[in-house]
Amino acid sequence: VHEITMSLEEIDKGGYPHFMLKEIMEQPESLRNSMRGRILLEEGNAKLGGLADVADRLANSKRILISACGTSWHAGLVGEYMFEHFTRIPTEVEYASEFRYRNPIVGSEDTVFFISQSGETADTLAALREAKLRGALALGICNAVGSSIARESDAGVYTHAGPEIGVASTKAFTSQLVVLALITLLIGRKKNLSLEDGKLIASELLTIPDKVEKILKLNPEIEIIAEQFKDAKNFLYLGRGYNFPVALEGALKLKEISYIHAEGYPAAEMKHGPIALIDENMPVVFIAPKDSTYEKIKSNIQEVKARGGKIIAIASENDDEIDHLVDYAIKIPDTIEMLRPILTVIPLQLLAYHIAVKKGLNVDQPRNLAKSVTVE
Amino acid sequence: VHEITMSLEEIDKGGYPHFMLKEIMEQPESLRNSMRGRILLEEGNAKLGGLADVADRLANSKRILISACGTSWHAGLVGEYMFEHFTRIPTEVEYASEFRYRNPIVGSEDTVFFISQSGETADTLAALREAKLRGALALGICNAVGSSIARESDAGVYTHAGPEIGVASTKAFTSQLVVLALITLLIGRKKNLSLEDGKLIASELLTIPDKVEKILKLNPEIEIIAEQFKDAKNFLYLGRGYNFPVALEGALKLKEISYIHAEGYPAAEMKHGPIALIDENMPVVFIAPKDSTYEKIKSNIQEVKARGGKIIAIASENDDEIDHLVDYAIKIPDTIEMLRPILTVIPLQLLAYHIAVKKGLNVDQPRNLAKSVTVE
Repeated sequence: VHEITMSLEEIDKGGYPHFMLKEIMEQPESLRNSMRGRILLEEGNAKLGGLADVADRLANSKRILISACGTSWHAGLVGEYMFEHFTRIPTEVEYASEFRYRNPIVGSEDTVFFISQSGETADTLAALREAKLRGALALGICNAVGSSIARESDAGVYTHAGPEIGVASTKAFTSQLVVLALITLLIGRKKNLSLEDGKLIASELLTIPDKVEKILKLNPEIEIIAEQFKDAKNFLYLGRGYNFPVALEGALKLKEISYIHAEGYPAAEMKHGPIALIDENMPVVFIAPKDSTYEKIKSNIQEVKARGGKIIAIASENDDEIDHLVDYAIKIPDTIEMLRPILTVIPLQLLAYHIAVKKGLNVDQPRNLAKSVTVE
Repeated sequence: VHEITMSLEEIDKGGYPHFMLKEIMEQPESLRNSMRGRILLEEGNAKLGGLADVADRLANSKRILISACGTSWHAGLVGEYMFEHFTRIPTEVEYASEFRYRNPIVGSEDTVFFISQSGETADTLAALREAKLRGALALGICNAVGSSIARESDAGVYTHAGPEIGVASTKAFTSQLVVLALITLLIGRKKNLSLEDGKLIASELLTIPDKVEKILKLNPEIEIIAEQFKDAKNFLYLGRGYNFPVALEGALKLKEISYIHAEGYPAAEMKHGPIALIDENMPVVFIAPKDSTYEKIKSNIQEVKARGGKIIAIASENDDEIDHLVDYAIKIPDTIEMLRPILTVIPLQLLAYHIAVKKGLNVDQPRNLAKSVTVE
């Protein structure tokens, strides 16, 4: 492990009261850095130097596994949806701590991605060693350059989000999603992703930083919403499809820094148990963009409403209908389905941040948590 | 859908105050019924009439998928561990609501299991139709005989747990686990499960009902523990490996009938966020049998303890060490790893039941929940 001697004070908070807010706010820039020089617009493809030598083997994988912990595991879940949809390679995501202890089915025809901001996560590193032992192609997706996972993997992609100091991961997460989208292009174009669809994804990717900038302008509005909910003891986050992992991630942010018991669920599972929790004391955050499952989500919203639950919705900017159904709607620009998590997660980062600040908590160094979990 | 005209009053509660308690208590019998005539002890194998015609195709599956909702989804997660370990067929579990909407990668070389107590779960039924359309072998694991999923699947296995009336599923879950173990034997013996190991699993299965009976005798002790925790507002359930899904299931039981916000997590993920929640107001239930991960779980327990968390452990009956680490230890008989969830879940069912009763809630018909989720 390389240690860099650098005190918190030495690193500029850039005028923000906390590193976390700085890191949330610099996402337009960190996302541009994650994409820079990597998008081949005319070819509808991605150029990832770190994967150049292994791209064919990757594209011919029998299965792809993604192993990670915490926020990186949530990025992996989004990656699973991207990979399966656009490459048709069966993909499975597994907690690194489970992968390493359970005699995983993985061999030389498979690829395993290891996602870790720090590149030092103990369970993920152990899982990487296990996968290499079994002959799998082991690829790292790390933020910290020269970290153990980056060095020990066969190849990989850096997220280039820049140093992340706040314990609750924000910009590292959205950069992981960008890298997973780029990898999807790379594999997809060698499989059944058409030039046209590749170009669409590539050009949409390029619009993401500006859209994130637009969402960040909603900060004052989100702060007002946070004020209303800062005393809540529990929270439920619900989403479907690509936004189900975002529900998990939104809940994790709130847990980590505000110590509010927040839980994410796929929206349709609500009726199989969690709906029993719903009353006027249980706010529910719905990630409800106007996509193919919008009607289903709307009916979930109505069920929560009927039980007195307070509702915050992350909705599409052109959606006027939802205003009548929810207590607060945060309207954001739209993009293609696979990239939506990069946008929908931003208001959830801000919501968690403001709730924690209003509770007077140490958002950059929450109790009990370490930035990088290097013990097992 | 066949409707059976039968009022709640007509069905005997067998002297118990609630159907849920009756159903928990009758598990030794329901488990015997799930196994009856299906275990070939000398051959270390299972005899499942419903799968006879498809057993070879099943054993030659390229991939196995398991699609379900709620408690049945938890059973599926245990099934994944069983199948991957003993058959080495890559297995993936997916929420039925997600499977049906996301263009799943599934074809004629794959098998998809659909698990549903009622056999009428709307999302699971829709997922079944999607899988059949794509040529997969679609197998049902249902409790209700003649239900839609049982009728529409290519073949299947009934759990034979008998009618389950309580909304929170108990005996149906443990019977699903038995059926998954039997299917593991059936596939495993056609793959790389040795006669010796098959015989071990078969003979261990036969001891399970008696062990469950022994655990049920702990009921008064669990009721006393419930009294201590009935006013808790939040709960965390942690387990590893085969017992991670049990943590999810234990938390779901508490959610469903006591409206306490309980959440399950793989124990190692605790350090990636949930540990921030831990203080003296957040009881933690550890499923901590003396297995290969016992030392890891012990260190997780110590971290919770150091932060003032109250701990209930489900532990092995010969484990004296754990008494010094936790506030309450519920000691249960041991079995082989793959069957442990059938035992470890029993105290969690009783704990949820007693907490809900002490809170004066309607355990058999909790608010907002339906026994069978036949709407989307």
